[in-house]
Amino acid sequence: MDQKWMKLAIEMAKSTMGQTSPNPAVGAVVVKDGRVIGMGAHLRAGEGHAEVNALKQADDEARGATIYVTLEPCSHFGKTPPCAELVIEKGIKRVVIGSADPNPIVAGKGIARLKQAGINVVVGVCEEEARSLNEFYFYHVATQTPFVTLKAAMTLDGKIATETGDSKWVTSPEAREDVHLDRHLHDAILVGANTVKADNPSLTTRLPNGGVSPIRIVLDTALSIGDHSTILTDGCARTWVICGKSASKEREQLITRHNQVWIIRMAEEKILLPELLKRLGEEKIHSIYVEGGAKVHGAFLDQKLVNRLVMYIAPKIVGNGRAFSVFNGAGVLKMDDAWKLSIESMHTIGPDIKVTALLQERR
Amino acid sequence: MDQKWMKLAIEMAKSTMGQTSPNPAVGAVVVKDGRVIGMGAHLRAGEGHAEVNALKQADDEARGATIYVTLEPCSHFGKTPPCAELVIEKGIKRVVIGSADPNPIVAGKGIARLKQAGINVVVGVCEEEARSLNEFYFYHVATQTPFVTLKAAMTLDGKIATETGDSKWVTSPEAREDVHLDRHLHDAILVGANTVKADNPSLTTRLPNGGVSPIRIVLDTALSIGDHSTILTDGCARTWVICGKSASKEREQLITRHNQVWIIRMAEEKILLPELLKRLGEEKIHSIYVEGGAKVHGAFLDQKLVNRLVMYIAPKIVGNGRAFSVFNGAGVLKMDDAWKLSIESMHTIGPDIKVTALLQERR
Repeated sequence: MDQKWMKLAIEMAKSTMGQTSPNPAVGAVVVKDGRVIGMGAHLRAGEGHAEVNALKQADDEARGATIYVTLEPCSHFGKTPPCAELVIEKGIKRVVIGSADPNPIVAGKGIARLKQAGINVVVGVCEEEARSLNEFYFYHVATQTPFVTLKAAMTLDGKIATETGDSKWVTSPEAREDVHLDRHLHDAILVGANTVKADNPSLTTRLPNGGVSPIRIVLDTALSIGDHSTILTDGCARTWVICGKSASKEREQLITRHNQVWIIRMAEEKILLPELLKRLGEEKIHSIYVEGGAKVHGAFLDQKLVNRLVMYIAPKIVGNGRAFSVFNGAGVLKMDDAWKLSIESMHTIGPDIKVTALLQERR
Repeated sequence: MDQKWMKLAIEMAKSTMGQTSPNPAVGAVVVKDGRVIGMGAHLRAGEGHAEVNALKQADDEARGATIYVTLEPCSHFGKTPPCAELVIEKGIKRVVIGSADPNPIVAGKGIARLKQAGINVVVGVCEEEARSLNEFYFYHVATQTPFVTLKAAMTLDGKIATETGDSKWVTSPEAREDVHLDRHLHDAILVGANTVKADNPSLTTRLPNGGVSPIRIVLDTALSIGDHSTILTDGCARTWVICGKSASKEREQLITRHNQVWIIRMAEEKILLPELLKRLGEEKIHSIYVEGGAKVHGAFLDQKLVNRLVMYIAPKIVGNGRAFSVFNGAGVLKMDDAWKLSIESMHTIGPDIKVTALLQERR
């Protein structure tokens, strides 16, 4: 039965993915005598953890009950008091945990505290599914840098535009909606200055029922984007413009006069991607969704800074080699040196094919 | 029960696909009192039809039995006597047919003959599966031209070689073996002269247990391939070299001095693909497997002469736009004009992805 309740807690946590960052997505279910007496998930950073919400619903009935929680309860005072203490105080008899929390401020301390209080603790029920809820969080804990998802859309012959530059549209509305789901799940979205200048995109999450917009990050070494660009003026989400050491102070003033816009000035003239990722990690960015264009994609791939590739492949053919290719970095000269991927999944979305793959040699 | 026996006949026919051309693949099962008393398939053009083989096994027991046959029995004298007459002569009581034969020399005449003899005839059991055994045959009957399968192998970013031309290997041994299965199924394989000059391929079918090699067709307007090319000298299969009206007679002599090599001289200076397909149709070629290179592929696509596209996509990235693209014809200038495909299937073969799709606007 443990699996049944854990799966419920996982489903609840899954529904909150993308809205809890920088906290992990967590679900909890309180069960007594075979009846659910409390359910809850963590809904937003700064608000109650999953255990708090579930135990509040259970109220006094919690005494002697079992709580199922997808992630190890915390043992430290953060924005909220430690959940382990609350579990003990409420008289919970048994705690079933999906996955331990590798975050050094928890990392087994929550489990130890519960055991110390005489509670029966089981760890690792549906562990793989429980861990997959917080892939980005775990990656950030392990590396202090964000998980990088690179997304591209192309024709079946690898093109993003014809030789004249016409690119509307490669993929279907269904595939484009799927992209918005991924924007919702990531902390930040990253594009090059050329994409902003060419398309003036908003880069927000526009799902039928809304969604959380990621922080918009633009690589703009010389602060060359127009200071009336939509991502600066619309106020729909935060925007971080990344520039080189000597970029114009005047341009900085023009750009940052808008609300929620912030400049990150790098230590070098050029934007060094490994340095940038380190910096974004320090800013608690757990995941970035790289939406291109072809040169930005190429730069991330050249430096092996991609974790997951998400490709939308439209069932159409442009038919010549002069049309624009999906990736345009330095690339490789020998086929044997091509970057290897492991296919994770493959299915159709509307008329298009979606392939996700992990880069085998993420440095 | 009709379906059960028909499915057996279809399985038997399926196992002979690729070895019966220009005849269709056909299977037959003779059943009496719920017992199989004869089974057979057509194995090779010029030899016995499926009904003949199955009825030979049934021998005198056939009297009063039912025969299941995937395709309408023939009613004409070809290399063998008409099967409809044999069925009547053997005293068969009931004939269950998968699909009628649209070939004008049969086209209902076989069914009519059986009915005329007082036999109970049922047509259309497992019809779709029965038809799919002979997609190429039916296409040729309908259009008098071959079904064109275009096969390409590329990286996930649409490349067939790096910018230096290095192309070994894009796909896995598993995918390359799958290609040999398709060679076995097609009547002819077609490449450009540049492929012969660059790779000196054999273009034969090399499956673990052999296989039928297709006729090797080379587009070589000026008869420029070396007269010691493997496809000319190896004697492993027929080779047809297609050239323009004024190609050198001297080169023709050099090339055709080898066994099984034949020149098709076109009526124009250039090789016009629609004319060529018409000519190949007259030569009873029901299917061609176009293996490129990129320009030949591009030419077939530009002229909308492709029925099915088979793409092997390797999970690797070359990473720049200078590398060689999978198709290099004239192509399209507007994304809206890109050639639309309908995805038929999509699965992994070893580490690679195989996508098959039909061109929506085959002219």
